[in-house]
Amino acid sequence: MDKFKAVLDLHLKHRSTLGYGVVTLLTAGGERLFSAVVFQCPCSEAWNLPYGLVFLLVPALALFLLGYALSARTWRLLTGCCARTRGCAGLRGMVVCVQLSAAAALAPLTWVAVALLGGSFYECAASGSTALGSRLCRGRDPVCAQQLPRVPCGQAKPPEVQDLLKDLKAQSQVLGWVLIAVVIIFLLICTSVSRCLSPISYQQLKFWKIYLEKEQELLKNQAMEHATELAKENIKCFFEGSCPKEYNTPSAKDWRQIS
Amino acid sequence: MDKFKAVLDLHLKHRSTLGYGVVTLLTAGGERLFSAVVFQCPCSEAWNLPYGLVFLLVPALALFLLGYALSARTWRLLTGCCARTRGCAGLRGMVVCVQLSAAAALAPLTWVAVALLGGSFYECAASGSTALGSRLCRGRDPVCAQQLPRVPCGQAKPPEVQDLLKDLKAQSQVLGWVLIAVVIIFLLICTSVSRCLSPISYQQLKFWKIYLEKEQELLKNQAMEHATELAKENIKCFFEGSCPKEYNTPSAKDWRQIS
Amino acid sequence: MDKFKAVLDLHLKHRSTLGYGVVTLLTAGGERLFSAVVFQCPCSEAWNLPYGLVFLLVPALALFLLGYALSARTWRLLTGCCARTRGCAGLRGMVVCVQLSAAAALAPLTWVAVALLGGSFYECAASGSTALGSRLCRGRDPVCAQQLPRVPCGQAKPPEVQDLLKDLKAQSQVLGWVLIAVVIIFLLICTSVSRCLSPISYQQLKFWKIYLEKEQELLKNQAMEHATELAKENIKCFFEGSCPKEYNTPSAKDWRQIS
Repeated sequence: MDKFKAVLDLHLKHRSTLGYGVVTLLTAGGERLFSAVVFQCPCSEAWNLPYGLVFLLVPALALFLLGYALSARTWRLLTGCCARTRGCAGLRGMVVCVQLSAAAALAPLTWVAVALLGGSFYECAASGSTALGSRLCRGRDPVCAQQLPRVPCGQAKPPEVQDLLKDLKAQSQVLGWVLIAVVIIFLLICTSVSRCLSPISYQQLKFWKIYLEKEQELLKNQAMEHATELAKENIKCFFEGSCPKEYNTPSAKDWRQIS
Repeated sequence: MDKFKAVLDLHLKHRSTLGYGVVTLLTAGGERLFSAVVFQCPCSEAWNLPYGLVFLLVPALALFLLGYALSARTWRLLTGCCARTRGCAGLRGMVVCVQLSAAAALAPLTWVAVALLGGSFYECAASGSTALGSRLCRGRDPVCAQQLPRVPCGQAKPPEVQDLLKDLKAQSQVLGWVLIAVVIIFLLICTSVSRCLSPISYQQLKFWKIYLEKEQELLKNQAMEHATELAKENIKCFFEGSCPKEYNTPSAKDWRQIS
Repeated sequence: MDKFKAVLDLHLKHRSTLGYGVVTLLTAGGERLFSAVVFQCPCSEAWNLPYGLVFLLVPALALFLLGYALSARTWRLLTGCCARTRGCAGLRGMVVCVQLSAAAALAPLTWVAVALLGGSFYECAASGSTALGSRLCRGRDPVCAQQLPRVPCGQAKPPEVQDLLKDLKAQSQVLGWVLIAVVIIFLLICTSVSRCLSPISYQQLKFWKIYLEKEQELLKNQAMEHATELAKENIKCFFEGSCPKEYNTPSAKDWRQIS
């Protein structure tokens, strides 16, 4: 029992870190599964480029939007946003929006990075692009440009052209590492600057985080109690035919204040 | 016991999310099973197109209607709807109807998306379509159009025609990803707009959800108690021959009000 | 113990849904077993059609009648029906009859649908039908019509004729899906219309369902007690030779009323 509690405590303490880790792992696993089972480069001049790009970018887009949708803060910001005149377009809204985007971008960036390191999506897309093809084939066999789309399937005729597969894979993996490096550096700079500009100190920030968490918890408990009582009154009224006294509920304006 | 309770709590909290997840997984699994075990492309000119389309669309239709039928809210909206004059065709009815359709469309969209990503249904249907066939065969062997229906079975004679299978698979998977992207974007826009226009704030919305849940629970308990008492009275009356006093029951009008 | 109770509660709550699910699964499994183990197409011109039809329709008929027989409501409706003059042919009797038929038709429709999706029964029956055979063989080998009955056994001589097996399977599966779609659409329309025309609302309907269940339960308990007492009295009377006082029992007319 003690062990279970320790695990639960650890879970509550590092919830967001754990969550990000799980998302990253699931995305990476999903990418490996997709590129192994579903992905099969058509090796035709017309379809290579769109096919590769669709597999590289559409799942990333889907993950990005899902990241937005699954975040509770998105909905807290949006709900009733059009009804209010201020508060949405303000500076605070912008900051929250940027933070949300950063959190939602984790999964799609993982997808793209893992896909580039794996290489198969990029090989397929690049071998179908005429611009890249003419650059790759410069100074080689004249049939190179024509045979290039067949490279990802290993069916290109002169073995010299088939060797281009290694070049494509190298390009893809270099791109993947560059992407990872850029993202990490960008994230670090952003966090540092925002922390540096904050008017409150480290301990105070920690205190506010604890306070916000506690407030959420207490608000939820109180709301649950309140709702139970209200429901009980109304049901009693219905079955016994005697309407209850007016029940004291916070107004819509009060609710908007604490959100 | 504590662990079990924690799991149960988690289940109640994320019931709808879990439900959607289970439905999605079951549908995807069912599709894989069907396309592996039952589906077998006839590879004849006349039957390819209807066969592929039937496997792609009829199960989706069945899942859509089942989704409607299994939702309790459908019946709450419909029951006694024709007897009432207003309340069905109103704006509220429309909104509920759209929400129901969205929830019911999850499983069929999953079916179609997974089927397109798998590719076998689309390959079979597309190889039997003459319009698509003439476009695919442009600039190829003259027997191409005639041999196309045999492509999904791997029995097309010139290997050049057989290579079209990869093109068909690529088209199918690109279509699948496009469908997924369109659905996610559409859903996100709809939810955002509806949330944005809502007059109440995030915390209040949460409170109302808790309240409605509690009310349902209490109503059920009270109804159970009430029914037991009523039944006891009536049975007693029957066996002892003495008819009971009139029992106080809510009228049909009251019931209609709270539904 | 608590877990067991929770499972039992769940069972009682969704009894009819679970029951239908079990019936469907058993029927589908039985069909797979039959078509794999018992069914063996005779591949003779005279016997193919009746053999296939018998396997397709007779088990369905048997399941339909079993469905009637196993339903408690059938016997409640029928018992004493001929003795009463009215009440059997009335509108209420008709409605109950239709509901019974719908419930009893679940298993046979599952049988036919699974059999058509599997395809072997239909292949055997269709290959023995001369009308269908002449349509299938139009524009093919002249021996086609003669060799057709041998197709389900894989013994038809020109391989071109043997290829018709795939067409037959496709027809069978398309028919199966069409059957499933038609049944689901029909069921949904009927339920919707009946619910829509009902004069009472959703919550009241739920209340009445709970009430009827409770009443059944209490009636059974009371009847048990009453019967025990009555039997005790009568036995006592027999052994002690002193006839008891007249015991107060509901008359046959009262019983008929509550059924």
